[in-house]
Amino acid sequence: MIEITGQHLINGRWKNLGNDTFSSANPATDVNNDYCFFEATSEDAEQAVVSAAGASKQVRRLSAIQRADFLEAIASEIELLGAQLVEVAMSETALPQMRIEGERGRTCGQLRMFASKLREPTQPLHIDLADSARLPMPKADSRLNNVALGPVVVFGASNFPLAFSTAGGDTASALAAGCPVIVKGHPAHPATTELVSHAINKAIISTNMPVGIFSMVQSSAPEIAQQLVQADAVKAVAFTGSQKVGDILNKLAQSRVNPVPFFGELGSINPQFILPALLATQANTLAANQVASMLMGHGQFCTSPGVVVVTKGAGLDALMATLKENITSAGAGTMLTRAIAQTYQQKLAHWTSHEKLNLIGLGQEGQGQCQTPAALFDVSASDYLSDVSLQEELFGPAALVVVCDNSEQMQLLAQTMQGQLTASIHGTVDEIQTEQSLDLIDDISQHVGRVIFNQMPTGVEVCHSMQHGGPYPASTAPQTTSVGSNAINRFTRPVCWQNMPSSILPSELQDNAASVQIVI
Amino acid sequence: MIEITGQHLINGRWKNLGNDTFSSANPATDVNNDYCFFEATSEDAEQAVVSAAGASKQVRRLSAIQRADFLEAIASEIELLGAQLVEVAMSETALPQMRIEGERGRTCGQLRMFASKLREPTQPLHIDLADSARLPMPKADSRLNNVALGPVVVFGASNFPLAFSTAGGDTASALAAGCPVIVKGHPAHPATTELVSHAINKAIISTNMPVGIFSMVQSSAPEIAQQLVQADAVKAVAFTGSQKVGDILNKLAQSRVNPVPFFGELGSINPQFILPALLATQANTLAANQVASMLMGHGQFCTSPGVVVVTKGAGLDALMATLKENITSAGAGTMLTRAIAQTYQQKLAHWTSHEKLNLIGLGQEGQGQCQTPAALFDVSASDYLSDVSLQEELFGPAALVVVCDNSEQMQLLAQTMQGQLTASIHGTVDEIQTEQSLDLIDDISQHVGRVIFNQMPTGVEVCHSMQHGGPYPASTAPQTTSVGSNAINRFTRPVCWQNMPSSILPSELQDNAASVQIVI
Repeated sequence: MIEITGQHLINGRWKNLGNDTFSSANPATDVNNDYCFFEATSEDAEQAVVSAAGASKQVRRLSAIQRADFLEAIASEIELLGAQLVEVAMSETALPQMRIEGERGRTCGQLRMFASKLREPTQPLHIDLADSARLPMPKADSRLNNVALGPVVVFGASNFPLAFSTAGGDTASALAAGCPVIVKGHPAHPATTELVSHAINKAIISTNMPVGIFSMVQSSAPEIAQQLVQADAVKAVAFTGSQKVGDILNKLAQSRVNPVPFFGELGSINPQFILPALLATQANTLAANQVASMLMGHGQFCTSPGVVVVTKGAGLDALMATLKENITSAGAGTMLTRAIAQTYQQKLAHWTSHEKLNLIGLGQEGQGQCQTPAALFDVSASDYLSDVSLQEELFGPAALVVVCDNSEQMQLLAQTMQGQLTASIHGTVDEIQTEQSLDLIDDISQHVGRVIFNQMPTGVEVCHSMQHGGPYPASTAPQTTSVGSNAINRFTRPVCWQNMPSSILPSELQDNAASVQIVI
Repeated sequence: MIEITGQHLINGRWKNLGNDTFSSANPATDVNNDYCFFEATSEDAEQAVVSAAGASKQVRRLSAIQRADFLEAIASEIELLGAQLVEVAMSETALPQMRIEGERGRTCGQLRMFASKLREPTQPLHIDLADSARLPMPKADSRLNNVALGPVVVFGASNFPLAFSTAGGDTASALAAGCPVIVKGHPAHPATTELVSHAINKAIISTNMPVGIFSMVQSSAPEIAQQLVQADAVKAVAFTGSQKVGDILNKLAQSRVNPVPFFGELGSINPQFILPALLATQANTLAANQVASMLMGHGQFCTSPGVVVVTKGAGLDALMATLKENITSAGAGTMLTRAIAQTYQQKLAHWTSHEKLNLIGLGQEGQGQCQTPAALFDVSASDYLSDVSLQEELFGPAALVVVCDNSEQMQLLAQTMQGQLTASIHGTVDEIQTEQSLDLIDDISQHVGRVIFNQMPTGVEVCHSMQHGGPYPASTAPQTTSVGSNAINRFTRPVCWQNMPSSILPSELQDNAASVQIVI
């Protein structure tokens, strides 16, 4: 058992310069957990940045194999945390054991996926050989590769205490790219953050990494986050969280003397477009799938389906009836934090009192501050389109059924929707191939990172073809993904090397390495 | 001969809704040119946006071959403009005939390079096949490709009236990506803009493109630029110009309700690091190359070498002597506009009166408002490092020689320099391979898009391995390039297609297309 000390991990040492503390609460019992965590001081944060900056050169010069060994060691060390990690994470998030264990598996799987990618030979991006005889001017040798950006600040996410936090996808991909990482732990699960940081620290020691490769600071105040984003030595920021906080941090990143990329995944309502022929025959299944998907993680997945778009016609009554039945019987669930539960209740109250919304059904009410009911409402497409507040994410287990008068209205909705991580089209194979449907799909594809046919959006596959990110507000950097192997590209930048002697080029660009893959 | 009417090209028509006009001046004679150009009204700009938005779907559904045909037709039509284009461009920029002809060649070459890239089979980014037997959960089929972003606003650049303006690299790469383009012509060369727009319009007609694929508006006022950047239907912006204007427009792009990527190339001083052994033996050649490079385009290339970094020692006196000789004998040159000339003169006055700077030599004074002398100054590294104003770009034919006491100071300068498009290291093959030099190169690579050995930075090769863009302020999007075939990636975004029937997938993702290149 690792003792939780509440300290920060800075430059290879557990320490705290200040004495102010904060606690996490158990959302299930609404009682504070036993541990206390030191609020990072400005000096703590500064030391973490200095440590990362100091290690930056050494980290980017690590071989791909060294980085792979490190990532795999982190995965093994996380597994060695065993039941303690599961219990602590459960106590801070109220997520069920199976979910935490599954998320641990995904977290370790991501680390190993990046490691296995690093074990493949590094390819040059492109090599153009010199041509001294070219007219009117000789052509210089130029070779393109990716270089690491430097220190990256990663913010832990409330809704994925493992897979999007301390050793989650952002940290794993930044380390894989050759960047030191400074994690700002999410204040809702600091003990989880500390345990995982212990695992990373053990991996640093066992694989002989520079200590500055990973630091972690805890804080429940916004000032430390702001300081880290604005630190001159920090070269990129990765954030998964609310649109409000993400916007603030992104603005800070862009208003620096030297602005840096801000990779924020901020919000998505993941619309479900149901076409008429499938609705006519599969209304019950569609309704059951919708409720099951929106209840996953009690509606606190980034890909939770918050809007169902249908047209009036056969099957709509059956859809509504099954939605009502399933949502009404849904038990109350526990939100991740008091603040998230409160925001959900406030927005739910707005929906409940909204004169254009009609309640389809409310799930069971819970007890305690963090327990909330699931809910489904319906609204006409014209009312939905005329009220922007309805088009914003409601983080939690609530969704709107938007009823269109006709397919043109459905198309208009697709054309005007905000950027989304995903959208699904549910239809028969026949109806999806009509010109009208293809047009709808085309419009949808302009607003999302992932287009899905006849499946629910929850459950993001960690694979090479994944795109987790879409136009704002789904992502602040829609040309990148935060899940899948391409996530590594966020933390590198192409550099062209012109007329350099082969021996001092990065290894993947040297003559011998490139001899089989030169493209002229 | 095409008659210059001063109108905008909007939705396939030459038109003007307002009657206010502006003129361009001939910088060589300081006399206004004969033509008048209508100031675009807000309604003109709005119509251009509506036209582009309306064509967006049709444009992104064009086949790669159709796009290639269009780009090649533009190149041919530009060539058919013949001597008129050269004469008009010369009259608006005072750039010499050979330079304009060379730039026309580069412009047409860029268009044809993107066309040839489009004629290669489009590759899927990745295909992951389904695995229904996978445990604990079946794996869905998912396939990743690039989709076009939608309407792109391109700003013409003062210093490249052809290659970075109306049909320049930004327009060519956006069209190649499948995006409609709205060009805001640079007010310094509106007649050139109009002629090239004529060529594009002819290509639209001959290759049967939707008219909304290209619009062009002229304006000398900032409001139209701001309106275009903020238009909801605009999905990306490409800009080459000053840091001041670029910052303003970028901030507008990021403060939209739906922020969009802003690809700005803003400023670079392209440092030249000269190592001691080469300085000791090649001082005269190094000095001659520096002056020749900084005088190209009268110092108005993005890659103009504005700083020379040396250490005290053998060869420094010879370097200074030759620099003085060559710069003193340099004739006055004509700046692109009165405003650019004025800014140059102001900053030159700041340098001249700066107590820490020492004048190495001043070129010949010119006549007329737009003629300016070249200039070289030297400064100690400690004085340079302590005054940020010296580290900013001085757009024009002036450079600083920064004299370091030792190699540590040179390294410090590399570590603290702003983001740059390029930096060169000049050294013998022996001295570049020392640990110290490798460390210097590593530091340099963290701040630039292109690292050059023993060559001057002017003369950017348009090729696959080019990286034209570095950390801010060189670029607002350092992970992208504005020159070379990868420039096209700025205007697409990855989309993952999950569980889609093969027949309705984008063609490059369909089963038959992908059968030989599936990676599982």
